[in-house]
Amino acid sequence: MNTADLGLPVDVPSTALFTDQYELTMLQAALKAGTAERRSVFEVFTRRLPEGRRYGVVAGTGRVLDAIENFRFDADVLGFLRERNIVDEQTLARLADYRFSGDVWGYPEGEVYFPGSPIMRVEGTFAECVLLETVILSILNHDSAIAAAASRMSSAAGDRPLIEMGARRTHELAAVAASRAAYLGGFASTSDLAAGFRYGIPTVGTSAHAFTLLHDRERDAFRAQVDSMGRGTTLLVDTYDVAEAVRTAVEIAGPELGAVRIDSGDLLLVAHRVRQQLDELGATGTKIIVTSDLDEYAIASLAAAPVDAYGVGTQLVTGSGHPTCSMVYKLVARAGSADPGAALVPVAKKSTGGKTSIGGRKWAARRLDEYGVAEAEVVGTGAVPAELADRQLLVELVKGGDVVAREPLDAVRDRHVAARGNLPLSATQLSRGEPVIPTEYVNGRSGNRAGA
Amino acid sequence: MNTADLGLPVDVPSTALFTDQYELTMLQAALKAGTAERRSVFEVFTRRLPEGRRYGVVAGTGRVLDAIENFRFDADVLGFLRERNIVDEQTLARLADYRFSGDVWGYPEGEVYFPGSPIMRVEGTFAECVLLETVILSILNHDSAIAAAASRMSSAAGDRPLIEMGARRTHELAAVAASRAAYLGGFASTSDLAAGFRYGIPTVGTSAHAFTLLHDRERDAFRAQVDSMGRGTTLLVDTYDVAEAVRTAVEIAGPELGAVRIDSGDLLLVAHRVRQQLDELGATGTKIIVTSDLDEYAIASLAAAPVDAYGVGTQLVTGSGHPTCSMVYKLVARAGSADPGAALVPVAKKSTGGKTSIGGRKWAARRLDEYGVAEAEVVGTGAVPAELADRQLLVELVKGGDVVAREPLDAVRDRHVAARGNLPLSATQLSRGEPVIPTEYVNGRSGNRAGA
Repeated sequence: MNTADLGLPVDVPSTALFTDQYELTMLQAALKAGTAERRSVFEVFTRRLPEGRRYGVVAGTGRVLDAIENFRFDADVLGFLRERNIVDEQTLARLADYRFSGDVWGYPEGEVYFPGSPIMRVEGTFAECVLLETVILSILNHDSAIAAAASRMSSAAGDRPLIEMGARRTHELAAVAASRAAYLGGFASTSDLAAGFRYGIPTVGTSAHAFTLLHDRERDAFRAQVDSMGRGTTLLVDTYDVAEAVRTAVEIAGPELGAVRIDSGDLLLVAHRVRQQLDELGATGTKIIVTSDLDEYAIASLAAAPVDAYGVGTQLVTGSGHPTCSMVYKLVARAGSADPGAALVPVAKKSTGGKTSIGGRKWAARRLDEYGVAEAEVVGTGAVPAELADRQLLVELVKGGDVVAREPLDAVRDRHVAARGNLPLSATQLSRGEPVIPTEYVNGRSGNRAGA
Repeated sequence: MNTADLGLPVDVPSTALFTDQYELTMLQAALKAGTAERRSVFEVFTRRLPEGRRYGVVAGTGRVLDAIENFRFDADVLGFLRERNIVDEQTLARLADYRFSGDVWGYPEGEVYFPGSPIMRVEGTFAECVLLETVILSILNHDSAIAAAASRMSSAAGDRPLIEMGARRTHELAAVAASRAAYLGGFASTSDLAAGFRYGIPTVGTSAHAFTLLHDRERDAFRAQVDSMGRGTTLLVDTYDVAEAVRTAVEIAGPELGAVRIDSGDLLLVAHRVRQQLDELGATGTKIIVTSDLDEYAIASLAAAPVDAYGVGTQLVTGSGHPTCSMVYKLVARAGSADPGAALVPVAKKSTGGKTSIGGRKWAARRLDEYGVAEAEVVGTGAVPAELADRQLLVELVKGGDVVAREPLDAVRDRHVAARGNLPLSATQLSRGEPVIPTEYVNGRSGNRAGA
């Protein structure tokens, strides 16, 4: 099947269309003005964390690399741009040849970040860098928002596994990216088959209330499920009366019953009752999974309850109150001419009324205290102080247009655990607060010509 | 280019993977139990509107129809399910032949809805209907959330056009659906090229701060833009000093300057100052576009300001505080046997602790008062009262597996304006409140065998 037949926006033939029109009109104007080839440095950063959050989580980097690699304007796209008269023929010719040939550095995926952290830096000609703004921000803003929520939930859950089950609460393809972000933020599995297919994330699932309602008696449904999936399955026990369902479940599956799932009611109370009942019935190994409108606070409040796993939907895929980050992609330095050797000049918006930036190509390092715990995010221009040289955060991701830093999702997941574990303990407190470490700016002598 | 090379989740070969695993395991268990062929009725509804909202907006219906039509399990997908051992061979064989052959009725896209409105009804065998749950909910929950925010913003904006520019704040493909939902909710255009490509939505865009910063002087940037795009373009005037930028803009473009854009600061104050300055400079026809972190409240607060158009990003694509709806897909009736002629039995979850539903296949009608204004959403089972017969809301969307109700997006957009206009005036008040009309339930005699 041709994906163009899907009737979904998946027939977009290239990531190049995930772009705001003004990126193209800026290119056209710069080409005409002779400024399009000026060497330019764009940085992705955020001026603040979502209110009350202690740290951010970098997520989506791997998807950004894929998007850059596939950012091409094919005949269909060029035909669309021509037909709509969006840019002129000179610009179309330039787009037809587009291939990013610059460099990208960034925080490795899974790292934590803070206000002002230069999360990603894109360097090349203005022409090639400006076009990437929209797709880079779409991916990082979405995925990082989900990963931040996932990270808080996984802190709250401790050793108990978290199941991502929010596909039905968000756009069908955002759901796939959300599963990926949840996994890197500490979730164990997903209900979303597309996420399993695309990213190899473990998938889980057994049955819904509809399955119980389909059958004439709850007992028939349980019997059918155990016959089909074995005694190790998870039976959903809150369609009618929970106590009766638990009794029936153990009667049918025996004490080898894998788990019961509770999807409504006062979970703390019900979990305790169900645990006691299971134990009395001899099903001491049967687990309890809860899945009703959980967020990190609800998960934390169940820490003392006899719960073995959590399923999280809505609050995960909507970033638990913060469905996007406020990452921006800003020109921070550019050459004064199109000469490839021209010096870079730091630039920044300066208007009053907020949205100011700090110009210049930046480095970042995380300073540790004597116990090896992070104590500051240090961001600077110019030379990196010697004592921070081995604590630098940016790594090379794309070199001369070639992706050089692909990595498996499990490595990203491990990195996040390590990065979070290196923060002060209060990072994982759920209560609202300031970023757990401050961001310090160091304005060194101009090092804008130097590599990172 | 093969979209499988995109490295994005667009290489999902079918909408059938946008599915929670339990839909498939339920199918397997039902096949084994002999209950998979029981005729079943599933309904999509929501138990409540997002807090404070007066009405909901049905959006995504057209995308759902596409998703159903393309819901197929091809060799790649079946291979994945087999390799992961998700379902058995009997179930795989069934999936290989899957094609929805049932009926779908629903509120036409663009209609308003209320708690309990049967927004969509899917009828067929349990086997064919249960699998569609996840993708239907993903689409409707996402698109309706965006459309509801768009509708409130367009009420607040009155006759002033709204530009959707939130692509960078959400998943790159969710952004395309968000543009579509925004357009049907009353927006005039989008910055997102993919939305223009896929749905024919008008696209707009001129330049960002980066373009001004690229040039040695703001004047050079303005000159370059006017040279490239003509005097009718929109110049961004808040990179440095707004008053100076406006002076320079009119100096370069003359009074024919199309518009200036303000993206930071106190918009009410700045808009007044800029309007006065433009008028003094003779640029009385030059428009003012504002674009800084707007939501429906900010738009309303600018009603008396000399603003000609609004650009909205973050708050649109995140549903202005409500990024998802709480629509569910519930089995409300099913046959007592696999006999195609067997009577339908209403079913509903009955456990205490919330999440209860009303069983039975439902009709819905909007009752009008003597002035033709909506006064109640009437939802019932059984026969439709004669006085409501011509006010019924559900229309046939899929008949025997064939989509029968495709329509252009502009028709959907017009329908929304009409539907909203038929509500009591308080519907468009932005302040928090109850649903603007109540939902009344009518339990008629059993009509579960009858057509809609």
